[in-house]
Amino acid sequence: MTLFPEMFDAIKQSILGRAIKNNIISVDAINIRDFAFNKHNKVDDYTYGGGAGMLMQAEPVYLCHKAITDSIDSSKKIRTVYLTPQGRVLNQEIAKELANEEELILLCGHYEGIDERVLNEVVTDYISIGDYVLTGGELPAMVLIDTVSRFVDGVLSNDESAMTESFSEGLLEYPQYSRPYEWHGKKVPDILMSGHHENVEKWRFEQSLIRTEERRPDLYKKFVETHEKDKKGRFIR
Amino acid sequence: MTLFPEMFDAIKQSILGRAIKNNIISVDAINIRDFAFNKHNKVDDYTYGGGAGMLMQAEPVYLCHKAITDSIDSSKKIRTVYLTPQGRVLNQEIAKELANEEELILLCGHYEGIDERVLNEVVTDYISIGDYVLTGGELPAMVLIDTVSRFVDGVLSNDESAMTESFSEGLLEYPQYSRPYEWHGKKVPDILMSGHHENVEKWRFEQSLIRTEERRPDLYKKFVETHEKDKKGRFIR
Repeated sequence: MTLFPEMFDAIKQSILGRAIKNNIISVDAINIRDFAFNKHNKVDDYTYGGGAGMLMQAEPVYLCHKAITDSIDSSKKIRTVYLTPQGRVLNQEIAKELANEEELILLCGHYEGIDERVLNEVVTDYISIGDYVLTGGELPAMVLIDTVSRFVDGVLSNDESAMTESFSEGLLEYPQYSRPYEWHGKKVPDILMSGHHENVEKWRFEQSLIRTEERRPDLYKKFVETHEKDKKGRFIR
Repeated sequence: MTLFPEMFDAIKQSILGRAIKNNIISVDAINIRDFAFNKHNKVDDYTYGGGAGMLMQAEPVYLCHKAITDSIDSSKKIRTVYLTPQGRVLNQEIAKELANEEELILLCGHYEGIDERVLNEVVTDYISIGDYVLTGGELPAMVLIDTVSRFVDGVLSNDESAMTESFSEGLLEYPQYSRPYEWHGKKVPDILMSGHHENVEKWRFEQSLIRTEERRPDLYKKFVETHEKDKKGRFIR
């Protein structure tokens, strides 16, 4: 549900584009403005109590939501996510949970926000993609679609899904290198050329730990608190 | 710098579209593949040391970056942001700081990532938009462009910028209502109809506090720690 349906063309590329073409997921952008039954297709108005900016009115959002739910053959209430800084902050766990749903409705706000009464009536989940201000809910909705779709069976190839699992361990990724072996005078670390799988894995894990401690002390702390060490003082993965 | 330049059409709408049309900001999507000087325009290869997925190679990224910096008449090094889960997490402060730059280069990764050596050579900032996995750096780059642009003079109207400031106080937004006064049997709260500006502001502030405590205890804690109370035990804004 959006005032800018064309924006969603952006996710018809790459991995998501392939999943859409293969009918593994489907994304429909519905224009809320099509449900503004007044003279100028107006969807916004001033805020009661005063204040800057315009607010999206309740009725067009409500009618749009109703048209969508009426068109879906489902016995249970369809989860409706409002993308807003006033929500839980998106993470892999939330995305994984949403991926279990057969259908999801995403509501994108614009202007100053949406009339509280229609939110109370149709929204089941308030989700934020981070603590920053954006022009509208469309980019957050696409971020959600991307993150959630990656948990849907068949969207990722085996190679691609292996990568996601590595991130989910709670550590940042280790440095990676590809051909050529020497580039601008810099060589690939010897250990990666050794062919010794176990040592490679050990090095990568250490690099992940170092990088996480450096760049994201919050994640590092969480990892340390939830992982035990072996007799040699090394973390057990 | 991207492998999917068409995705960036998505930000040619709404407030950003207006800013681009008015020449207040400009966004150029440069295709990294145009700098793959090999038989099949190949930009990716296997990862040294083994592992799932392909890696973006150093040279096309390097040549693309060089072409961009060469084309810009600037005496100082241009800040180059790599969008990656291995970065600082974006917030309003980071966005505001980046908005001071005359030029910004954003690097979007795909596949398993990018060869570490070229990152060391060209990247000045590693930024993540949140702790979730996405298919590529394009959506994060657009999120960054949106957030940063809102701090550039002339991008927002006065009304629009007033809204951003309210969020920056560190609390979630209060509930808002627009016409009609009664919708689906639900009326706008009396206080908002009173015309008493001071009481309206007080109510909104209280609602923000309640909502922040409920939905984002982390932000609430931070607010409480950094704000003093008056004699009556009310927070001073």
